[in-house]
Formats: sequence, structure tokens, C-alpha cells
Amino acid sequence: MKNQSIPSPVLWRLSLYLRQLEHLATKGFEKTSSRKLAEALQTTDAQVRKDLAYFGQFGRPGVGYRVGELIGQLRHILRTDRLWKVILVGVGDLGRALLRHKSFRRNGFELIAAFDTSPELIGSSVAGVTVRPMRQLSDVVGKLEIKLAVVAVPPDVAQGVTDLLCRAGILGVLNFAPTSLHAPDGVTIRQVDLAAQLEQLSFHVGAAED
Amino acid sequence: MKNQSIPSPVLWRLSLYLRQLEHLATKGFEKTSSRKLAEALQTTDAQVRKDLAYFGQFGRPGVGYRVGELIGQLRHILRTDRLWKVILVGVGDLGRALLRHKSFRRNGFELIAAFDTSPELIGSSVAGVTVRPMRQLSDVVGKLEIKLAVVAVPPDVAQGVTDLLCRAGILGVLNFAPTSLHAPDGVTIRQVDLAAQLEQLSFHVGAAED
Repeated sequence: MKNQSIPSPVLWRLSLYLRQLEHLATKGFEKTSSRKLAEALQTTDAQVRKDLAYFGQFGRPGVGYRVGELIGQLRHILRTDRLWKVILVGVGDLGRALLRHKSFRRNGFELIAAFDTSPELIGSSVAGVTVRPMRQLSDVVGKLEIKLAVVAVPPDVAQGVTDLLCRAGILGVLNFAPTSLHAPDGVTIRQVDLAAQLEQLSFHVGAAED
Repeated sequence: MKNQSIPSPVLWRLSLYLRQLEHLATKGFEKTSSRKLAEALQTTDAQVRKDLAYFGQFGRPGVGYRVGELIGQLRHILRTDRLWKVILVGVGDLGRALLRHKSFRRNGFELIAAFDTSPELIGSSVAGVTVRPMRQLSDVVGKLEIKLAVVAVPPDVAQGVTDLLCRAGILGVLNFAPTSLHAPDGVTIRQVDLAAQLEQLSFHVGAAED
């Protein structure tokens, strides 16, 4: 499949371009250029053009990009020109923060169901989403044809939860648990590693001090 | 400076190798190989060796790596062989989740102070950390010689908070606000973009469905 051969750093930068374009749109800008996008993201205009060229021809030489048009095109590429239903597993502090996070929906994602094992949490509601018992997971995923899940459980149970999600038909997992997960072919896992983010900072700050 | 010229994807993978090695250590493994590290991270053993070669000579041909030794070496490279004091700005849902997140300290980072503007939050304590008013920020950063900050405030105030942090002497910012931040030369910013993480999933899942 052609799209599967896009290098992952290119795909990641596509999201960053989209975020920057959305920012420009809210500021009222109607046009931009690869140079301006590059400046905002501390890269080169050649890199911006090369990244976009993976997906076709955008903008016009000497004119640049229409912000609204390019936003639409990038959303189409990233498949966020539709609303994705997403489930959350694990309604601890982080899970609650995610349920209340307002930017997901604006970007094409809606957390529509949450699951936990804790009897005290089951039946309660966070940001309008009812917390359900784990035994309902497979049913909800199947009936609502949900493909994406966010995992915010303790690391020692994250693999078990992921196995359950994959059996239920989930094809993409965003993992916040600090452990690497394995999934069958055809399932994409993204790891949000907060310690790794801080390590990138300590490396640079430490290097500058040495 | 030599370390500043390391490509950022290499540096990112260094954190992922470290996480995997820590996982192996907790499971009691004493040795590993570039092949095993590569398998766990869905890359190639040549990539693992090439990444590590940026920083020196590790392991022995035919023998592999001693897990504990390589953990120590990677922590030394990433400067997490010391404990970094980190401050948090913004004690909303996400901020509270971060203060309660247990894996930071294990990885060399300690959230030691938290700041917010809300009168109801100031003076309260989350996970043993007292929430302070913003006006104390500069003083705390200076006196405790803090270099790293986590920003978990609404997007419209994130740049103002970052300006304040930079003036106070912060050199590394981990930003959770869904907006891109600018900082003077010498300050490193990392953006945690949760929507972008989900977009990477929607792209792959959507592509598989097309």
C-alpha cells in the first residue's frame, strides 16, 4: 500500500504543519508559504516542500499555499476529515485529563466511551462520558465500529488491555503506560513516553552546561 | 558542540532503547543484543548499532551488551545519571496527573514545585507538592537553580508563561498546550501534541481501510 511507505518522520511533520496552519487560520491568515511554515517549525522550506511532495502537488510557485485549502488537504491525507470515535481504557488522573481535553474533537477525534476496573468509578461520568466495566468493552467496540483506543492504565496491565482491544477489533492504540506494547500485524501502536520527552531536554540542557 | 549535532531521531531512539533496557532489567535479564533491541522496537540491528555508534563503543561483538552497563551509559549520555529538578506550570487535570505520575522520578526527573494563577488552587497540595502563585516562579527557579519546566496551561497563555520561564532562567520546556511556542536561542522546547499522536493512528488505520 502506497501510504504505508511514507517515512514516519514525514508523517509526523505533516501533523505539525497542520497544527501550524490551524494556528494561522485562527489568526485570520489566508495565505502562507513553505518558508513561513519552515520558520515556524524550525526546519527548511526545502524540507516542507519535500514532505508535501510525498502526497501530491500543493500550492503555487510564487503564490504559496491557501491556508484553508491546505488544511483541508492535510486533514484528508491524515483521514481527519471525518470524526473518529475513540475509547479510553483507564480512568485515573491521566484518563480524566484526557476525557476533559478539549482539543481532540476539534482535530477529528471524539472520546465516546471509557472503561475501568474500579467499582467506585464504574457508572460515574467524566466530561459527559460514562465509565463502563471492562466486560462491556468488546461489545461497545463491535457495535459502534470503533477502531482507535487510548490506553492510560498502569504498566503491568497495559499489555493485557491491549490484547483485549486487539481481539475486540481495535486497529490503533495510543499508549500512555510507560511500557512498550506488542500487537498483531495490522495494528498500529503509538507510545507517549513522557520520560523520553524530558530526556530529550536534559540531553540538550546538560550538553550546553558541559 | 559535538552533542548538539546528534540527529534528533537518533536521540529519541536512545530514550526508547533505554526504556527497553530498563524493562529487560526489571525482568532479570543481564545481557541483550542489538538484534533483540531492534526486534522490541521494530527496527533493524544495523540501526541500533549505528545509533549507539554516535556516542562511542558499546557492547562486545558476539557477546552483546550487559543490560545494567548499557543502562548506565545511556543515562550518562542523556544526563539522567543525576536527578533533575523540574517545575510545573498549570495545575489543571493534566497538571495534577503529571504531579502524580510516578515514572518521572525513576527516570531522573522530580517535579518539585507547581505554579498556578487560580486562588482556589494556590496553597493546596497535590502529590506532596504545594501549588504556588506565579509571582514566586522567578524566585524559586533562581534559588533552586531549576533548568526544566513542564507547561500545562491553556494555549492562549502558554507563550506568556514560556516568556516568563525563559526570563527566570529555564533552559528546557516540555509543552502540553496545543500551540507551538517560541523561545530564545539556547532554550529547548519539546511539544507534546496529543492530537498529532492520534493523527498518526488515523492515517495508518484509514489507509488500511481504503
